[in-house]
Amino acid sequence: MTSLTPTAIALDRLLRPRSVAVIGASADPSKTAGRPVAYLQKHGFGGAIYPINPRVDTLAGLTCYSSVSALPQVPDVGLVLVGPERAEAAVRELAACGTAAAIVLAGGYTETGEAGAQRQHALKVAAGSMRLLGPNTIGLVNLTDRITLSASGALEIKDLPAGNIAVISQSGGILGALLSRAAARGIGFSKLVSTSNEVDLEVADILDYLVDDEATQVIALYIETLRNPVKFRLAAERARLAGKSVVAFKVGRSEQGAAAAVSHTGAMAGADRVYDALFAQAGVVRAQTFADLLDMSAALASGRCLLGRRVAILTSTGGAGTLVADSLGLAGFETPAPDAETASDLRALQQNDQAALDRNPIDVTLAGLQPLLLRGAISILLASPTYDAVVVIVGSSALAMPDLMADAIHASLPGSAKPLLAYVSPHAPEVARLLGLRGVPAFSAPESCTAAFTALLMQEVSSAHEAQKASPDLAAIESRSPLAAYAAGLSAGPLDEHEAKQLFAKAGIGVVRETVVRTTADAQRAAEAFGTPVVLKLLSRHILHKSEVGGVAVNVAPADVAARLGLMQITVKEAVQAAKNTVPDAWLVQEMVSGGTEMLLGLQRDPLGMVLLLGMGGVTAELLDDSVLRLLPEVGGLQPAEARAMVHSLKTWPLLNGYRGRPLADVDALVDAIVQFSQLADALGERLLTAEINPLFVLSAGQGVRAADGVVVLT
Amino acid sequence: MTSLTPTAIALDRLLRPRSVAVIGASADPSKTAGRPVAYLQKHGFGGAIYPINPRVDTLAGLTCYSSVSALPQVPDVGLVLVGPERAEAAVRELAACGTAAAIVLAGGYTETGEAGAQRQHALKVAAGSMRLLGPNTIGLVNLTDRITLSASGALEIKDLPAGNIAVISQSGGILGALLSRAAARGIGFSKLVSTSNEVDLEVADILDYLVDDEATQVIALYIETLRNPVKFRLAAERARLAGKSVVAFKVGRSEQGAAAAVSHTGAMAGADRVYDALFAQAGVVRAQTFADLLDMSAALASGRCLLGRRVAILTSTGGAGTLVADSLGLAGFETPAPDAETASDLRALQQNDQAALDRNPIDVTLAGLQPLLLRGAISILLASPTYDAVVVIVGSSALAMPDLMADAIHASLPGSAKPLLAYVSPHAPEVARLLGLRGVPAFSAPESCTAAFTALLMQEVSSAHEAQKASPDLAAIESRSPLAAYAAGLSAGPLDEHEAKQLFAKAGIGVVRETVVRTTADAQRAAEAFGTPVVLKLLSRHILHKSEVGGVAVNVAPADVAARLGLMQITVKEAVQAAKNTVPDAWLVQEMVSGGTEMLLGLQRDPLGMVLLLGMGGVTAELLDDSVLRLLPEVGGLQPAEARAMVHSLKTWPLLNGYRGRPLADVDALVDAIVQFSQLADALGERLLTAEINPLFVLSAGQGVRAADGVVVLT
Repeated sequence: MTSLTPTAIALDRLLRPRSVAVIGASADPSKTAGRPVAYLQKHGFGGAIYPINPRVDTLAGLTCYSSVSALPQVPDVGLVLVGPERAEAAVRELAACGTAAAIVLAGGYTETGEAGAQRQHALKVAAGSMRLLGPNTIGLVNLTDRITLSASGALEIKDLPAGNIAVISQSGGILGALLSRAAARGIGFSKLVSTSNEVDLEVADILDYLVDDEATQVIALYIETLRNPVKFRLAAERARLAGKSVVAFKVGRSEQGAAAAVSHTGAMAGADRVYDALFAQAGVVRAQTFADLLDMSAALASGRCLLGRRVAILTSTGGAGTLVADSLGLAGFETPAPDAETASDLRALQQNDQAALDRNPIDVTLAGLQPLLLRGAISILLASPTYDAVVVIVGSSALAMPDLMADAIHASLPGSAKPLLAYVSPHAPEVARLLGLRGVPAFSAPESCTAAFTALLMQEVSSAHEAQKASPDLAAIESRSPLAAYAAGLSAGPLDEHEAKQLFAKAGIGVVRETVVRTTADAQRAAEAFGTPVVLKLLSRHILHKSEVGGVAVNVAPADVAARLGLMQITVKEAVQAAKNTVPDAWLVQEMVSGGTEMLLGLQRDPLGMVLLLGMGGVTAELLDDSVLRLLPEVGGLQPAEARAMVHSLKTWPLLNGYRGRPLADVDALVDAIVQFSQLADALGERLLTAEINPLFVLSAGQGVRAADGVVVLT
Repeated sequence: MTSLTPTAIALDRLLRPRSVAVIGASADPSKTAGRPVAYLQKHGFGGAIYPINPRVDTLAGLTCYSSVSALPQVPDVGLVLVGPERAEAAVRELAACGTAAAIVLAGGYTETGEAGAQRQHALKVAAGSMRLLGPNTIGLVNLTDRITLSASGALEIKDLPAGNIAVISQSGGILGALLSRAAARGIGFSKLVSTSNEVDLEVADILDYLVDDEATQVIALYIETLRNPVKFRLAAERARLAGKSVVAFKVGRSEQGAAAAVSHTGAMAGADRVYDALFAQAGVVRAQTFADLLDMSAALASGRCLLGRRVAILTSTGGAGTLVADSLGLAGFETPAPDAETASDLRALQQNDQAALDRNPIDVTLAGLQPLLLRGAISILLASPTYDAVVVIVGSSALAMPDLMADAIHASLPGSAKPLLAYVSPHAPEVARLLGLRGVPAFSAPESCTAAFTALLMQEVSSAHEAQKASPDLAAIESRSPLAAYAAGLSAGPLDEHEAKQLFAKAGIGVVRETVVRTTADAQRAAEAFGTPVVLKLLSRHILHKSEVGGVAVNVAPADVAARLGLMQITVKEAVQAAKNTVPDAWLVQEMVSGGTEMLLGLQRDPLGMVLLLGMGGVTAELLDDSVLRLLPEVGGLQPAEARAMVHSLKTWPLLNGYRGRPLADVDALVDAIVQFSQLADALGERLLTAEINPLFVLSAGQGVRAADGVVVLT
């Protein structure tokens, strides 16, 4: 902690203050403004509490001050409970005296509209260099150090267990819900911070700070929108390097991204898919349901490693084990029967056991009732080379002796580093809580077990990925200069198709041979020079849908080109004039590509960054949407290995790989084209809005690729 | 109830007995065999209890009998608690004295292997005409009449609420888990029956009985396997006609159906997809998770109707409303903002309300704290024409006054028939239980709200479907006789391709023109008669993969046919002899179909019945698996409307419907072909194992369809 950034220093004072001023504290603990001081005292805050309320002298046994300026020392934190009409002045006062950070609970800011947004801006101005949490936040809770700077009703709970999971939430209500739900399950937190309106401190800031918090091993995020994706990615990368897990639940999943009419790419890269890509690339485990957020965090907090997909399910009750096995099976986990040695060890546990040990779930009816036997059975399964993890099914027999059962399960942990989870079949919250307190994640939904293992597996993959990660391709970054210089000569707006393809060619991507012509005679000559059937197209930067105005003819024999183009000129002119558009005066004669597999490559600027999309082409794949996307890094393009992984992750990848006797496609050339396309985005930088190659023909092995049509829009 | 079946009469005595013999009752209530008598007494059974235990005179204050023959009257039910070695004798004794039904709790039967299966068969023989529940069952619970015939530990719970949901479970442990979980949530049951090994009474029997149970409105099923799908469908249909809901959760979802190597159809119709079809066609709502089973049942038990997808979310806490809206949005539900009148009504509820009412979730911060205002707001939203249903978010403010909040929400029910659900954001099990007891389904997962609405919507669709349902096509059923007569002339085993297509043609399906030839000269003549390019194929019932042995040539000009076939004869002969297969002596000259859309039609015999599968053809659609299936009815084929619905439900349906300027396909002809194919299955009956048309070319509108290749396997 020798080189702390100013933000980290301020956050350290915010999260671990030695003194807190509570502006607008009420003497009535039943009011929201009365809660924070009561909670600070109740949960054992050891520092100085300064209630500020000009109308009373003392409050909860504490001296009350009339204003910030009247305080005996500069507080580390100001907790602002007054309404929006007075919050700005309070913030100004706190900033003036050198307070590190203020927490503003009041609502009435951007969430209410334009006037609120102005009020929020004024709040930021009033804070100056002082950091702000909120406004509209429920505050923060530091359970590691028993410091509560919050009005959350969840702090009414007496025994909030401390643990190694931190929570950062863009909603105060969600923070409270997680706090009360986790406490009931014996799941402990280190810190919980509600960033809410994020006029200053945002998710990425807190995330970055918590990477260095020794008490935190897992960071759970509730996200509505990421204001600074670059900062977020850097913080998430730091977490990964520090061996800490980040789990995120994101709402707004049903919203579609703003579809750019100019290309398919915009429509295919919906906002939620980009978040998917961001999380996957940053090593963040994505929670698919709100319950997953806590379930996955609890599993990751155990610190145990899942090195494979084989799970032993130990049960003493019918049905429940089947439920878990079924859910695991749907997610690709395996539940193999015990090997001979494991079965023999299990049988040796107790005499006269009639259990059939040729199956999994492993039903040990007697052992389930006796804690010592249960512990023995779990230890055998954890030690078995056949299994990577164990789920213990807790049946109704545990209800009579919850402590003994929880202790027995807990006692089998030390001998192994493999994950051990519990599924609680009856309604038995006390057993689940006792297990949670002992570090055994316990779930009441089969899907929770599956989510937990999925998170553990993703974490392993993410670590492995980190180890293999190559450094940016410096040669590529240097070579972008000529491309950028070329692009500098292009004007803003859409390029025409020929210009777009020239740009792709400059990036190194194979394009079809083509000639721009203005007359039918030139067209005829150009086609004869190719000596193959050609495609004729109108050339215009104003007409987006060429086919719709009759501006495309395919498979035209060289001898027919002049006549066909003559016809096209008439058709297009009529259609274009009817739409009051500019009549094109140039045409494209393009070699006809035969064979090969049609694909699509797109680039799209998204609020989260530049997105590269690879899709299988053709109407069938388009209807079934077989595509994959990546967020490009800030500097440099994709690595070839990343591009290859994109290709392999398409469901229709077999079409490129010799499926049903098809020729092998030139996958190396496709990988090169993806990398080059990503470098194009890097070279164009902020100027590029969208680009698309559709179709990109991928020819047989050794024959390369051909971009046959393209769109580029620059600013 | 004038025409009760013998099964119904027996089930009535089983579920509502006036006397129960408990064979093997133990005087020690801590033992499993001691529980049933204790539970019968504790939960208030009003009939006679006869413990049978030769070693004691009295038990729990009751006279104990030495044997069944010593009883003062014939018991309605025998509850058999003895082990498998003595159960058979007990069952025989009970049957001999005229007991209606016996419940056998002992395990050690089919679930343990071959010896157990024999034991189970002996048990059935011993029962004679007496009905058996189990073995390996936990028994049954009738909460309507407070009768517990079970050893389930869940019966330790004192206040098990009675309600209108029945449970039929193939697992005893699951029955207990549902009982304890529902009680904690205030969800009441009418009857719970564990059928388990189903040596006699099975899910379908109990389901059929419960359709007539006045206390039951919803029937929840936990299914591992359906032994008698026909009986199940009939019972489910009866439930639909009676206006009762059936919800099913099925395990074994990750198992694949036994893929028939002879066709794609087998591989595509995995076991779980057939269950999907069965449930959908029988009007059974399928629970996607185990939690859904209870959540959906609770929603359906409210008896309220969801007539659209527009949901109002009323919240007083941030975040939680967003969670619910997000989950609903993913499932296609809408959350529109309040209309002007609704907003005005809400605002009139309280003075000085600053709530922004231009959005949904509808945040009425103040109202959330005051029960009367909450009730008013809910009533306004239920009455609003903008909404089809309401979700109330219960925040931490409810924790302080759970009864008042639950009463307020409950009090808003009578004015409307629209569904009202609650989402409980903090850990607040008591609020959820109080709401459940008042008939307001309350959930702690956003996905539960979505599942609940989905179930209500499916129920509406299912009822509408029922109203529209046509009676079987009698003409089609009568016309199957000639087809059946034709098929009777076909021998068992696989047909060759030409025979298969002749059979399809007999069913009325358009097939390609083709000629069977034995010499190259005949082939040449046949091709010239067609006058178009042709396809040449080997013809054999022994060779499944023609292409792999070089036995297919496409697009052969008539003039080249003799030479090409000569070459094929040599290639095929070598390949076939190498594989020690029979060399074909016949060949097929087939007109080449150009244009059209390739599809696939399959029939596959499944344990649940005959399945018809429709899929888009071509490798891309095959890789992305765009197909749909239906279970065929016992009598008659599909209705044209059902066939058309199948076509429309394909994701690639636009390919047939003019997508991107493609010609409109002959959908009417495709629908006819599907219906005719289904009638083929009807006519062939048990003789048909599998049939497939692949590809079926669907030509442009008015041009019909052409079956271009086919497989049929008969027994």
